[in-house]
Amino acid sequence: MTDIDEMLAAGNGLLDRRFFLRAGVAGGAALMTASASAVERKEWMKAPGEGMSGSGAPSSHESHIVRAPIGSSPGTTGTGASRTPLQFLDGIITPSRLHFERHHAGIPDIDPAEHRLVIHGLVERPLSFSLDALARYPMVSRIQFLECSGNSGASMAPEPVQGTCGALHGLVSASEWGGVPLSVLLEEAGVKPEGKWLVADGADAAMMSRSVPLDKIMDDAIVALYQNGERLRPSNGYPMRLFLPGWEGNMSVKWLRTIKVIDQPAMTKDETSKYSDLQKDGVTKLFSFPMGVKSVITSPSPGLSMTVPGVYQISGIAWTGAGKIKRVEVSTDGGNSWAEASLDEHVMSKCLTRFRSAWRWDGSPSVILSRATDESGSVQPTRDRVLSERSSAAFYHYNGIQAWRVADSGEVTNVYA
Amino acid sequence: MTDIDEMLAAGNGLLDRRFFLRAGVAGGAALMTASASAVERKEWMKAPGEGMSGSGAPSSHESHIVRAPIGSSPGTTGTGASRTPLQFLDGIITPSRLHFERHHAGIPDIDPAEHRLVIHGLVERPLSFSLDALARYPMVSRIQFLECSGNSGASMAPEPVQGTCGALHGLVSASEWGGVPLSVLLEEAGVKPEGKWLVADGADAAMMSRSVPLDKIMDDAIVALYQNGERLRPSNGYPMRLFLPGWEGNMSVKWLRTIKVIDQPAMTKDETSKYSDLQKDGVTKLFSFPMGVKSVITSPSPGLSMTVPGVYQISGIAWTGAGKIKRVEVSTDGGNSWAEASLDEHVMSKCLTRFRSAWRWDGSPSVILSRATDESGSVQPTRDRVLSERSSAAFYHYNGIQAWRVADSGEVTNVYA
Repeated sequence: MTDIDEMLAAGNGLLDRRFFLRAGVAGGAALMTASASAVERKEWMKAPGEGMSGSGAPSSHESHIVRAPIGSSPGTTGTGASRTPLQFLDGIITPSRLHFERHHAGIPDIDPAEHRLVIHGLVERPLSFSLDALARYPMVSRIQFLECSGNSGASMAPEPVQGTCGALHGLVSASEWGGVPLSVLLEEAGVKPEGKWLVADGADAAMMSRSVPLDKIMDDAIVALYQNGERLRPSNGYPMRLFLPGWEGNMSVKWLRTIKVIDQPAMTKDETSKYSDLQKDGVTKLFSFPMGVKSVITSPSPGLSMTVPGVYQISGIAWTGAGKIKRVEVSTDGGNSWAEASLDEHVMSKCLTRFRSAWRWDGSPSVILSRATDESGSVQPTRDRVLSERSSAAFYHYNGIQAWRVADSGEVTNVYA
Repeated sequence: MTDIDEMLAAGNGLLDRRFFLRAGVAGGAALMTASASAVERKEWMKAPGEGMSGSGAPSSHESHIVRAPIGSSPGTTGTGASRTPLQFLDGIITPSRLHFERHHAGIPDIDPAEHRLVIHGLVERPLSFSLDALARYPMVSRIQFLECSGNSGASMAPEPVQGTCGALHGLVSASEWGGVPLSVLLEEAGVKPEGKWLVADGADAAMMSRSVPLDKIMDDAIVALYQNGERLRPSNGYPMRLFLPGWEGNMSVKWLRTIKVIDQPAMTKDETSKYSDLQKDGVTKLFSFPMGVKSVITSPSPGLSMTVPGVYQISGIAWTGAGKIKRVEVSTDGGNSWAEASLDEHVMSKCLTRFRSAWRWDGSPSVILSRATDESGSVQPTRDRVLSERSSAAFYHYNGIQAWRVADSGEVTNVYA
């Protein structure tokens, strides 16, 4: 028995999560013995390179790393989505340029000097805040995910849709969000006792509107002004958006313009015709706010083929609206056996968590899956389980287990397993 | 006695860090009673906006948020630095486009397909890694700061240099860094017993070279491939760099090309003529690796004037090469009295930590300062204390307390206090 066999943790060559910490055992992976030619001075070492710049850009060799696919409703230019290319990213932060977009009437070009946030309705003192006024309030910053509740909707299709991991699951991203706790502003305005909800409107032409229970607002909602250290990007609500950690993305109203305190949900178009779940019994389930526990393997994944048999890193992301991810398990034998993945150092509440497993692929066809468990004890369900409760016309809030098939050629495809 | 007086925590109106958590007390800050005109539909709500894009950009209204100043040595274009505009940022992540730059011969345009990392010297098996080979190794990701040891060097000048917070202290940034632990690769190569250090070379025309003790490498050094989720930016070492958490930035060799295991420091030009500290007694102190405990108030700061008297948020960043920040204290009376600041939720090892205090400014001239303490017990020293040990020609590793003077006009300037 060799060292590597002692590290087997589940069927089909899945290795213990401590595998990579052992000395010398990764030797089979992929390397070359160094030769003199390997240290020759390349052309780019023979003359000084580019100088400094005010705002940096990615390498020209990475120009294919973009949001995709970009889909707009027929006859419109700004009613649709673009998705984070998850298969090309690592870690948990999404670069702001690649944060997913979902717009209902495009990106308004807002003059920040003209923009106001108005709080009105069931309050003692209706208030209006300019950006300068908000800057004097206390702020908080937290690294958290945002997921569109339509993410992964393609997984409800009768046959597996072929696409990259980003195309299928890229309506989730994570950023550092910084802003003013909305509770502070509401306390300033003085919520009347009959105020139980609020309805938030966006300053886009669609006037996106969502109702939010006040309990959530008082818990951890912010008026976000910053994303990954700088002002929000226009596609993410510049100059300000509502941010509701862990809840369906659509509620984190972008280009936030008015907050009206009300006594019951406003039943806006955006929370009734959309973002609601048609059940098998014909009843529509409204107000599914927290996003379910979920994970997906980002590498290997469609478009990222494996090459020769050997040891590979399986890597992916997990998240839950309920708080922290507690555990991610990985299977490489279609779900017959599972082994616990290692989690990267930062496991934060309502944030993406990066997981990794080591896999000795023997070159035979394999089906790989991941399954997340969160600190509330919720376990990511199978696809069959999710479908058992929904109408076939349902679309939102899909969090089933994703299976990828690795062919003997190394090609990776989307399968139901 | 009013509510607000009960919250005083130090002289000159500095308020308790729990101030902003109390209901209604922020009322004096800055707001307007809402009127009907405040909720009028602006022009940008009257037609659909911009559509989706592959790669997003900041708002055109934020085009002034760039790295500055951009300084290059006379007669060169790529030998110098550009700095993170700390005064315009919030939270702890630095957007990759604004991460500081420090180059010795510009940014090489490296073809990732041609690039190799070679490990040689006192090893059993010299090895050469392509990017594809590295991708199969285990990775880790962590959010950590990087600081040039020349940061804040202007504070050693006899008279206070006037400039923005970024111009004075912007050679520090924080990112999520992802890559392969170098310990894994060295174990693969097999370090010989006499190997105690390594020397790392960059693939720039200056062939930047630094010696690093093996203990640090085995502790937490990585070969970084990712920055904030995507591949490294060219100005930060694309396609790979060494990353040494908490140690002076220059050692995290960019465009990493060779690692040679050696038995003692190589004494390269970059660790002897530069990045060393001339002491008062004429002896040069070499190898000051971990960065000292430090903090700076980013807002208010020069260029960000205050306006009318009232309650303001004081905000800043703190960091230490020794691990986590334990405490930040703020003074608004020139250091006569101090109150503890609140720390944002994420206090991570060898990372920026965001601190905030509430201050009721009465409109009189004031000197504001911050002082950080880390988990090792080290306290950020005064400027006098730092200078007492150094030659007047010394330049690197300055971590003294920064004082800003707020004039009665609200203008903020750099002072020694």
